[in-house]
Amino acid sequence: MGGSKYRDAGVNIDEQDRAISAIKKLATSTFTPNVVTGLGSFGAMYQLPRGYENPILVSSSDGVGTKLKIAFMTGIHDTVGQCLVNHCVNDILVQGALPLYFLDYIGTGKLAAGTVEAVVSGLANGCRENGFSLIGGEMAEMPGFYGEGEYDIAGFITGIVDKKNLLTGKNIIPGDEVWGFPSSGLHTNGYSLARKIVFDEMKLSIDSFVDELGCTVGEEFLKIHRSYRPVLFPALERNLVKGLAHITGGGFLDNIPRILPKTVSVEIQLQNVPVLPVFDFLVKGGKVEAEEAYRVFNMGIGMVAIVSPEKRNAFTDAVGEKPVLLGHAVPGDGTVRLL
Amino acid sequence: MGGSKYRDAGVNIDEQDRAISAIKKLATSTFTPNVVTGLGSFGAMYQLPRGYENPILVSSSDGVGTKLKIAFMTGIHDTVGQCLVNHCVNDILVQGALPLYFLDYIGTGKLAAGTVEAVVSGLANGCRENGFSLIGGEMAEMPGFYGEGEYDIAGFITGIVDKKNLLTGKNIIPGDEVWGFPSSGLHTNGYSLARKIVFDEMKLSIDSFVDELGCTVGEEFLKIHRSYRPVLFPALERNLVKGLAHITGGGFLDNIPRILPKTVSVEIQLQNVPVLPVFDFLVKGGKVEAEEAYRVFNMGIGMVAIVSPEKRNAFTDAVGEKPVLLGHAVPGDGTVRLL
Repeated sequence: MGGSKYRDAGVNIDEQDRAISAIKKLATSTFTPNVVTGLGSFGAMYQLPRGYENPILVSSSDGVGTKLKIAFMTGIHDTVGQCLVNHCVNDILVQGALPLYFLDYIGTGKLAAGTVEAVVSGLANGCRENGFSLIGGEMAEMPGFYGEGEYDIAGFITGIVDKKNLLTGKNIIPGDEVWGFPSSGLHTNGYSLARKIVFDEMKLSIDSFVDELGCTVGEEFLKIHRSYRPVLFPALERNLVKGLAHITGGGFLDNIPRILPKTVSVEIQLQNVPVLPVFDFLVKGGKVEAEEAYRVFNMGIGMVAIVSPEKRNAFTDAVGEKPVLLGHAVPGDGTVRLL
Repeated sequence: MGGSKYRDAGVNIDEQDRAISAIKKLATSTFTPNVVTGLGSFGAMYQLPRGYENPILVSSSDGVGTKLKIAFMTGIHDTVGQCLVNHCVNDILVQGALPLYFLDYIGTGKLAAGTVEAVVSGLANGCRENGFSLIGGEMAEMPGFYGEGEYDIAGFITGIVDKKNLLTGKNIIPGDEVWGFPSSGLHTNGYSLARKIVFDEMKLSIDSFVDELGCTVGEEFLKIHRSYRPVLFPALERNLVKGLAHITGGGFLDNIPRILPKTVSVEIQLQNVPVLPVFDFLVKGGKVEAEEAYRVFNMGIGMVAIVSPEKRNAFTDAVGEKPVLLGHAVPGDGTVRLL
């Protein structure tokens, strides 16, 4: 009797409808005039802005990795959405691109509309704060794929830059200065190691208050990945930067080489790095070797800008905060040396 | 002694490097001249094609749902990549957009380079077959998130259409004809229910040969989601179509209304639907009620085109195969009736 129902197979269409209705409202709050339509059409539409001579689209996809486990442990699901947006914004900013729009993917085992709504409210906040639009996404309910109450999220950003304003790093020469901009904490990298150190080795819990950090483990680990668009875009508009590197997984060692010419290296004076307390705490707690730490964590610098010495003053005036001089470009082979 | 290593935390950077090297080769094989750079830069760059008066970007994000479980059961991981690309291509085709580029996200618990390479080879095949480029992606190793050997994938597509060629369905009027294009099978929808019916209720295994299907359960369930770009784009270029609906989750009932004006409904003659053997098999095996079946499965039609009767002959000449007349648009309220 009865026969098979989709709901019996673990897919709950009513809960999906509730989530979709919340998402529509949140996404609509981010719409700029270039968004051609509301959600609901198969593909999301965006009218290309005018005024570009030779427009290059710059796109990136990303996740927030096991930082999600912190969201699951704390029950706080909005900040990871903001982290995802900001991470993506930074990844195209380093090519000189302004974000136009964002789409997300949320995969979950059993859909909880409240959780999805919290995640998407974070995405919408991140988009609004960076002045662009959340225009679409996919929410997949996949029974048996994710643990109870767990999910994964991916983000997809599209931005634009005029070809003449593309930032590639190709003009970096020895003598150029390497400036760093502080991170807010772990950002979205190194969480597998950080969780192992804090929970498995130090036997702390998510609610443990840590004196050195002035907050709980959960509060520290949920700190939002910074967007560097507000501080850096004014300097990009005035052509004051030769190259930008977003310091994510791989740290200085893997990320700065992505923009270096093959005959130029970068030397970073480690004593100049304003190491955040959370990294001292993790390195000490986990007895992490320095090279490993600088490869897994950002250590306190989330964005690096390479600037000609002649433009130093204009650059430091243009950016909205005080950056740190980390080191210099030197003749070399496209690598980074930590001194 | 020793201290914490990133590898001990479950993240294997060497295996990641192997996967990245394979992915680069596969992705490069899809590059069109508009791809500005190789992989490795933070964001992927694509030069906007010229010749559009008022270009609209059309983007979509999607997954393949629990069809992935069939990939896990069979150990065949490339076809799901093609399904994902084709699904995305169809989702922007229905707005009249040509695909420009694709990015992916692969989340996994413990990265297996061979599996990732197979998935990405499917993505690359799908992109090449549709004439566009896989320009970037993210591969996230997240210990504890996915079952052993399991993963999730999401795809992000960006396409383009001139505003005057946008397909919206707004000109659909009563009397217009509703044409259907056959699906190849389940495509990427209804797998949770299909798996429950076949494995839990009918007690078949992935290798069971099913006479009605002429193949094994695994072979049937892995059939590749069709791309309708090759057959339909010639008709779109000649302005022969008023609206297209991609028949995915929700079937005719939920997908056709997405393009209908509020005063027009669509009537589908169910006897005209060329129901594929797999759907008869599932409906019978699971005692699924007709309305439920038509909401969860595509039943044999993967794409619906709405065409003015005056353009019928030009339309059927232009498309690369013989479509099926399913029914008509009638005065109504933006809904679909199955007769």
